[in-house]
Amino acid sequence: MSKLPASIKIGHHVVIENEVVIGENVVIGDHTVIMNGTQLGDNVEIGANCVLGIQPGGNNRMRKTQNGAHKLIIGSGTKIGHLVSIYSGTVLSDKAFVGDHASIRENVSIGRETVVGRAAIVELNTTIGDNCTIQTLAYITGDTVLEDRVFIGPCVSMSNDKYMGAKEYTLKGPHIKEDAKIGNNASLLPGVTVGEKTIVGAGAVVTKDTGDQKVVAGVPARRIRSYY
Amino acid sequence: MSKLPASIKIGHHVVIENEVVIGENVVIGDHTVIMNGTQLGDNVEIGANCVLGIQPGGNNRMRKTQNGAHKLIIGSGTKIGHLVSIYSGTVLSDKAFVGDHASIRENVSIGRETVVGRAAIVELNTTIGDNCTIQTLAYITGDTVLEDRVFIGPCVSMSNDKYMGAKEYTLKGPHIKEDAKIGNNASLLPGVTVGEKTIVGAGAVVTKDTGDQKVVAGVPARRIRSYY
Amino acid sequence: MSKLPASIKIGHHVVIENEVVIGENVVIGDHTVIMNGTQLGDNVEIGANCVLGIQPGGNNRMRKTQNGAHKLIIGSGTKIGHLVSIYSGTVLSDKAFVGDHASIRENVSIGRETVVGRAAIVELNTTIGDNCTIQTLAYITGDTVLEDRVFIGPCVSMSNDKYMGAKEYTLKGPHIKEDAKIGNNASLLPGVTVGEKTIVGAGAVVTKDTGDQKVVAGVPARRIRSYY
Repeated sequence: MSKLPASIKIGHHVVIENEVVIGENVVIGDHTVIMNGTQLGDNVEIGANCVLGIQPGGNNRMRKTQNGAHKLIIGSGTKIGHLVSIYSGTVLSDKAFVGDHASIRENVSIGRETVVGRAAIVELNTTIGDNCTIQTLAYITGDTVLEDRVFIGPCVSMSNDKYMGAKEYTLKGPHIKEDAKIGNNASLLPGVTVGEKTIVGAGAVVTKDTGDQKVVAGVPARRIRSYY
Repeated sequence: MSKLPASIKIGHHVVIENEVVIGENVVIGDHTVIMNGTQLGDNVEIGANCVLGIQPGGNNRMRKTQNGAHKLIIGSGTKIGHLVSIYSGTVLSDKAFVGDHASIRENVSIGRETVVGRAAIVELNTTIGDNCTIQTLAYITGDTVLEDRVFIGPCVSMSNDKYMGAKEYTLKGPHIKEDAKIGNNASLLPGVTVGEKTIVGAGAVVTKDTGDQKVVAGVPARRIRSYY
Repeated sequence: MSKLPASIKIGHHVVIENEVVIGENVVIGDHTVIMNGTQLGDNVEIGANCVLGIQPGGNNRMRKTQNGAHKLIIGSGTKIGHLVSIYSGTVLSDKAFVGDHASIRENVSIGRETVVGRAAIVELNTTIGDNCTIQTLAYITGDTVLEDRVFIGPCVSMSNDKYMGAKEYTLKGPHIKEDAKIGNNASLLPGVTVGEKTIVGAGAVVTKDTGDQKVVAGVPARRIRSYY
């Protein structure tokens, strides 16, 4: 067991493994599991039935990840919902928020005050800036970059494998620049860049780079004068 | 602890907080958490590893909700699956069904015998009628109205924020009238009305009101003579 | 309680019901529930907060399933993530992988070394071959066939009810032949056949059979010379 500060408020049937470091005034909900080496900053709040600090795994058809850090680090004031899973080797900055049923993989970095919505998923090796909003059920694929203040609408989908497992290919997700906004249920293809302040319409399929300050929509997405 | 009737069938490691009211012949699965003030009618069945009666939260970039009711009320004969989260201030009518991994936010009303599918999500301030079917992984955004007997296909997506956080805007989700049917993976934009008995094709993007008894499909959705 | 082999590595607050058969060197995470009659092969690994071996249910508006087998069988060397739900009457072959937050219904067969991704959902009466990859948040509807080595991209959606509950109709999901690949967020309509080695583009809506070795894209999906 790890050392627990007197200020902790801890639920029933919580499991805290070894070498876990816990700040002041932390709240942990019932039935949550905090795995080896996890670090929780001051005032972190975690809901019930979560699993945090998971070591990466997979079967023999899945890629292996390097995970030197072997730690999940959650910054001060960050709140985690219920039924959430987060892997080791990932860092959440201060005052972030992770909704219920969300899942965040290993080697991910999440910026300050960023919101990862309910049932949203962030895959491995992805970097997300400050003050981003990732809405409910959005899918952030692996090897992706979201700069600061990016808005990802609900159910947005991304991919990072151009050949869908058919050829050797360096996996590369989208790169979404500052202040870009992606409408609900849009699809982004591997390696596309969405420019600064660009708006992607709901249901669009982005197959190539958009340029900055553009509005694009449709299947495949084309530039339009005015989306609204 | 709350008073438990003798007829309850309760799993292992269940947590029942204070002021919980439980009817006759209720079943609660292992590791489920029933939070303060929740009311369960007669013959309610709840699966394992659920979290019910959650108080709304969020970080400082998320809107605050009024939650005067401070209670989750689940009607008689309603069944809740496993790994489900439901917030306080929400009412589920009698004989409804909520699938595994689903999540329902605060200030939501769900009608009689309505089915909320597996991993479907219903956001806050939404009203859903009687005998609706919301299929797997569908996303019902906040501030939305579904009238009676609406059918929402799998993976349907909605949004309620026309400017995606860029401007002040009164959030408004779709209004879906009686007996309308939405095909799988369709996208509905903020504030659109889908008319009575209207059918929206799979993968359509609905950008404006459809009228009653229409069949619409495509991106953006246009009226078609016959969808099938 | 069931008999546990000495080689089992079992977490805290695990619930193992009756007539569960457990092989050698099995690992079961904290707070997981293994329901009646489940059979786990040698070297099976199961994460935390899972619910395995669930008996089918539903309310009076949902179809009833035959479930003669009444057992969940998990083959040797298969790994199950965290927060997963799997029903009884389903068989997972050896060395398969099921990601966190995934859900698999009753009467499903999953082939050897197949990967069911994070938060992916497989509905009832579905057959999935060997060496398939079903990516994150993909939705495999009921009454569906995936042959060997099929690739389903993230957020792919399917349906099996042509009339969306409006008429009597024998539910039929897609049939996806060997080595076919479906791009992210594509939608497949009820009963369509995707041919061998056929590629479906991201965001496509497949409304009719594709033929073998084709490349199709768009809404509705049409054959194109070259997708890449």
